Amino acid sequence: MMIRTLVVSLLSIGALATSINTSAANEPIQPIKAVKPQNTDMVELGTMLFFDPRLSKSGFISCNSCHNLSMGGTDNIPTSIGHAWQQGPINAPTVLNSSMNLAQFWDGRAKDLKEQAGGPIANPGEMASTHKVAVEVLRSIPQYRAYFEKAFGSEGVDIDRVTTAIAAFEETLVTPGSRFDKWLEGDKKALNKQELDGYELFKSAGCAGCHNGPGVGGTLYQKFGVHHPYKTDSKAEGRKEVTGKDADLHFFKVPLLRNIELTYPYFHDGAVDTLEEAVKIMGKLQLDIDFNKKEVDSIVAFLKTLTGEQPDFKMPIMPPSTNDTPRPEPF
Amino acid sequence: MMIRTLVVSLLSIGALATSINTSAANEPIQPIKAVKPQNTDMVELGTMLFFDPRLSKSGFISCNSCHNLSMGGTDNIPTSIGHAWQQGPINAPTVLNSSMNLAQFWDGRAKDLKEQAGGPIANPGEMASTHKVAVEVLRSIPQYRAYFEKAFGSEGVDIDRVTTAIAAFEETLVTPGSRFDKWLEGDKKALNKQELDGYELFKSAGCAGCHNGPGVGGTLYQKFGVHHPYKTDSKAEGRKEVTGKDADLHFFKVPLLRNIELTYPYFHDGAVDTLEEAVKIMGKLQLDIDFNKKEVDSIVAFLKTLTGEQPDFKMPIMPPSTNDTPRPEPF
Repeated sequence: MMIRTLVVSLLSIGALATSINTSAANEPIQPIKAVKPQNTDMVELGTMLFFDPRLSKSGFISCNSCHNLSMGGTDNIPTSIGHAWQQGPINAPTVLNSSMNLAQFWDGRAKDLKEQAGGPIANPGEMASTHKVAVEVLRSIPQYRAYFEKAFGSEGVDIDRVTTAIAAFEETLVTPGSRFDKWLEGDKKALNKQELDGYELFKSAGCAGCHNGPGVGGTLYQKFGVHHPYKTDSKAEGRKEVTGKDADLHFFKVPLLRNIELTYPYFHDGAVDTLEEAVKIMGKLQLDIDFNKKEVDSIVAFLKTLTGEQPDFKMPIMPPSTNDTPRPEPF
Repeated sequence: MMIRTLVVSLLSIGALATSINTSAANEPIQPIKAVKPQNTDMVELGTMLFFDPRLSKSGFISCNSCHNLSMGGTDNIPTSIGHAWQQGPINAPTVLNSSMNLAQFWDGRAKDLKEQAGGPIANPGEMASTHKVAVEVLRSIPQYRAYFEKAFGSEGVDIDRVTTAIAAFEETLVTPGSRFDKWLEGDKKALNKQELDGYELFKSAGCAGCHNGPGVGGTLYQKFGVHHPYKTDSKAEGRKEVTGKDADLHFFKVPLLRNIELTYPYFHDGAVDTLEEAVKIMGKLQLDIDFNKKEVDSIVAFLKTLTGEQPDFKMPIMPPSTNDTPRPEPF
């Protein structure tokens, strides 16, 4: 009797597991899996570097200044503030789940997170340092030298190692556990009717044609303004700036919609404050659909179910500069 | 036999305890005690507010921007960067152990942390918001409203509550467990000979006349330039700006020396990068003593034993703005 119950239970579990897998497999969006880093020393070092404003000329701006992990991995302003309060040319993309992008930056000009990480440090409009000075700063600090040795297994601090460590940290910044993922994984009560209606519309209207995969985006480039042009003051040309081809004008990497509730304002120019307006514009420009209010509200309700577990870690403590450390030049 | 051993042990512990207490009681510096907050909801709310850049006009500057808890509670630059990259008039004091100050700011113009917390939010040269807008931002966010209700036991968000919560968080930012405190508490091996020599000189030369108490400072105002004037480009007049009295010109609150290794650059103008130079200048100007290199090095070695346990908490996650939240004005 006991054995028979057990067998039946096991069979039920098997059937359930199959049903979940099939269900998730048929969807254009896949759940996010938590990342277990192999080299925790590397991630710890990368966390410190991500938060260390001494990688900037001013000593004031860190990676976290514009990719604020307390705020969805963004700065929540239209375009970022750089060295000496320069206005950035484009909206800062979230660093959350950014490993799911086929390439980095809106125009995909960096092939991966490691290549991306070196950009802002030396960009005169952003952190405005140089790789040389940034490395000198870190080398002058004995605790940092020890952290690098521990993470890499040998002595030495160079920009390649700096960007490797930052990328290793960023790869941990995934956000599993959203209500949508719970639903994908079989908890059919995780979404309410409005949210499910929104998801069905998201698929049937064609949004999921571009916004798909575990990141709900990041898998391809697409023209912004397929049916109607997007009106903007932004001079960003998208992929054309990388490929030089006119055909790539205003093609941008399709942004991740994970945690989209947190990563306002929207679009590459950050011109749109609300999800409702963003959904209406996307419907019209990309799909030539005029979503009505009820439809917009249902898609927005669905999008808000994509907010996952936010980064959960101790605020890092930075080792102090020494008498040999190059000093910041804030003014 | 067992009982006798126990009695002897208890007697020994009693004798040891008396010796520790007597020893610490005779010193001008007292150990720091960890703070156990009574209202943890209040502290949690204060942590979020401390890190929330939406309290600034730009949406870019938080309390933590200039009082960076990853870096000794300071920004490690001579004077701070304010809204639109304005240069601040004075070096940002550390927020660590700041509850041990008799008053806040270098000139003591705020009587406590709560009064201090309101200042930078509305200062046009710092966060450049207004109390009205800052409160509107928080009120527009349902999760914040709920956090305030939980912390205060009733509904409502106003500037008085905002500053109360920030101050409650700041009061937890004490740094016990330094090697010097271990020594004070009876671990005579916690300091080496050079460090002890430095401490003896710190007392015999007169440094401890002003730098005393658990914060190793913060207990009184003193003229900067007792024996010789301090040469600086800073226009700060110190206490005179508060009292209006000429006699108070260049009187400043004696800064805390806790974690002084982390809170470079030094003095109210942040003009001095190294502890060695700071000690030499202080000896000459305040005590009319020319410390030789060995003396300077020993005092610096002692000062570095004042670095305590740094803040240890999870990076806070901020609730997102809503469609009703006033937007930042970064440019």
